[in-house]
Amino acid sequence: MRVAALGGGHGLYATLTAMRYLTPDVTAVVTVADDGGSSGRLRAELGVIPPGDLRMALSALMSAPAALEARTDGRGRTHRGGHRLWAETFQHRFGGRGALAGHPVGNLLLAGLTEILGDPVAALDELVEVFDIDGRVLPMSSVPLEIEADVSGLESDPRISRCIRGQVAVATTPGKVRRVRLLPTDPPACPQAVEAILTADLVVLGPGSWFSSVIPHVLVPGLLNALRETTARKMLFVNLAAEPGETTGFSVERHLHVLHAHADVLRIDDVVVDAASVPAGRERDHLVRAAEMFGAQLHVGDLAVPGRPVHDPGKVAALVGELCEGEVSRYAVRAHES
Amino acid sequence: MRVAALGGGHGLYATLTAMRYLTPDVTAVVTVADDGGSSGRLRAELGVIPPGDLRMALSALMSAPAALEARTDGRGRTHRGGHRLWAETFQHRFGGRGALAGHPVGNLLLAGLTEILGDPVAALDELVEVFDIDGRVLPMSSVPLEIEADVSGLESDPRISRCIRGQVAVATTPGKVRRVRLLPTDPPACPQAVEAILTADLVVLGPGSWFSSVIPHVLVPGLLNALRETTARKMLFVNLAAEPGETTGFSVERHLHVLHAHADVLRIDDVVVDAASVPAGRERDHLVRAAEMFGAQLHVGDLAVPGRPVHDPGKVAALVGELCEGEVSRYAVRAHES
Repeated sequence: MRVAALGGGHGLYATLTAMRYLTPDVTAVVTVADDGGSSGRLRAELGVIPPGDLRMALSALMSAPAALEARTDGRGRTHRGGHRLWAETFQHRFGGRGALAGHPVGNLLLAGLTEILGDPVAALDELVEVFDIDGRVLPMSSVPLEIEADVSGLESDPRISRCIRGQVAVATTPGKVRRVRLLPTDPPACPQAVEAILTADLVVLGPGSWFSSVIPHVLVPGLLNALRETTARKMLFVNLAAEPGETTGFSVERHLHVLHAHADVLRIDDVVVDAASVPAGRERDHLVRAAEMFGAQLHVGDLAVPGRPVHDPGKVAALVGELCEGEVSRYAVRAHES
Repeated sequence: MRVAALGGGHGLYATLTAMRYLTPDVTAVVTVADDGGSSGRLRAELGVIPPGDLRMALSALMSAPAALEARTDGRGRTHRGGHRLWAETFQHRFGGRGALAGHPVGNLLLAGLTEILGDPVAALDELVEVFDIDGRVLPMSSVPLEIEADVSGLESDPRISRCIRGQVAVATTPGKVRRVRLLPTDPPACPQAVEAILTADLVVLGPGSWFSSVIPHVLVPGLLNALRETTARKMLFVNLAAEPGETTGFSVERHLHVLHAHADVLRIDDVVVDAASVPAGRERDHLVRAAEMFGAQLHVGDLAVPGRPVHDPGKVAALVGELCEGEVSRYAVRAHES
């Protein structure tokens, strides 16, 4: 099974870990609009694509339990704990208070290699090759992007909305994000990412920061077209909880409405939500109808790490495995609830 | 043939390139006293061993012509130009005027991996493994070192000498360096470096910055002992030219006297100098006697890149090959000159 997983940050990390339980053929298609932290410093200083989300995706593919198992049964060379060590090294942030403080090693390596090769995809492919990583990591666009948002609630008159710019600004706004745009407004899709979506058996979108890691993918025309054209099964994973800042107070249903408002032509096969985040009853009926905006069926399952609002990769893998193999226990709400 | 090559910087780079023509079993034993540039910034900011000379040695082993040839005939995996690309990436310095400007990618990678593994030798071995490098790179000591020098000519009275500290200060002093010391004064030798010297067939010392890359090795008691105990053939390569700053105006003979003054117990088998740097005649007779201080035979050969005061690795390899195989044409001065 070929999987293309679209997202960014910790949400994508969890998805990639989950998908690696199911198949080694996983391609991550990653947002490149971050302007904060190490990524923000690197894009400002060097003009490179922000490497942070790409680095996290590489680390996820390296440190997925399945990757570590595959490692130990030998693929020609022995790496003395290779994948785990390098996943840790990629993620390792320099400490202290100096010029390097906060930069993860993997960001610097990816930035340097991209400067040498002149192309982030070539750099990512080289890292996949050298570190013997199953899967592939691609930027959603080959140019660094910026996020711009219409935000209301920043003025005393709640009807007035203001335009704010930058992923950090959007993610931390005290206002309500109404709509996001990418700059440039018609960014080129990474051709290899388009190809990955077109040739996948399964495309997974989300979970992740809704306005800055999930919605941006459908704002890249080439990716949206690929999502419409692909014969892959398309699954949307909704976040387990609203995020302070960009989605404060958002219900699961509101997540769906917001995504639909940004790409009403998007069709999805499955919308997957965590049982604990949606009380049974009336609210699920609303959700079923919200999913139908995309032509999707709603699936409600136990997906969370107990006591924490994050997806458990093992549970996600089990659910996806069931859905994709057409197994009986489909978690479909109507069957459960009616 | 097992070779241990002792030195640092560009001199060691040339030696390693030369030795890789002769054998894949080359261990670099590298100075770790640099306090300038990227290395100086990293040791100050992170407290790590200065990585610059170690990085250069790794790059030398990766980009030696023999390494690139070995690469193309396949060792299980294909790296799409791997060694050449990674040698270039290790050496690649970030540009611009920002916080990263001037840091080579390899320095940051080595520093980060050393932080993770807690040990520079483990980090170097891991890089050798991942990048499939023939040979090994070791620091001469497992702790960062400082160089301190007695320098005359800084006061109006030339008999007065002052103590200056730091590799950069020593390398650029307008005075005459009389003697150097290491701080700590009795630094621990890297055990793996001691082992490499003891088990080598050939140990090569120099060329390189005389006070900051060559002499430091004999100031580490464990390395000096290993040099005395090893059954390896020991060759000293003298620089082709004096370096502005630390060896301004030094003759070849003076290089030998200065080394001897720092380690009079050191015994060497072969002292190798470039023909163009020593006029035939009287001066070579002096050199023969200077070599005899170490119990060494003098060899004079054509070693330079035409028109430049740097060793040509191919010529060095040819000469070492002849000497080590006991070939006829030994370049021995007495045979030539008498």
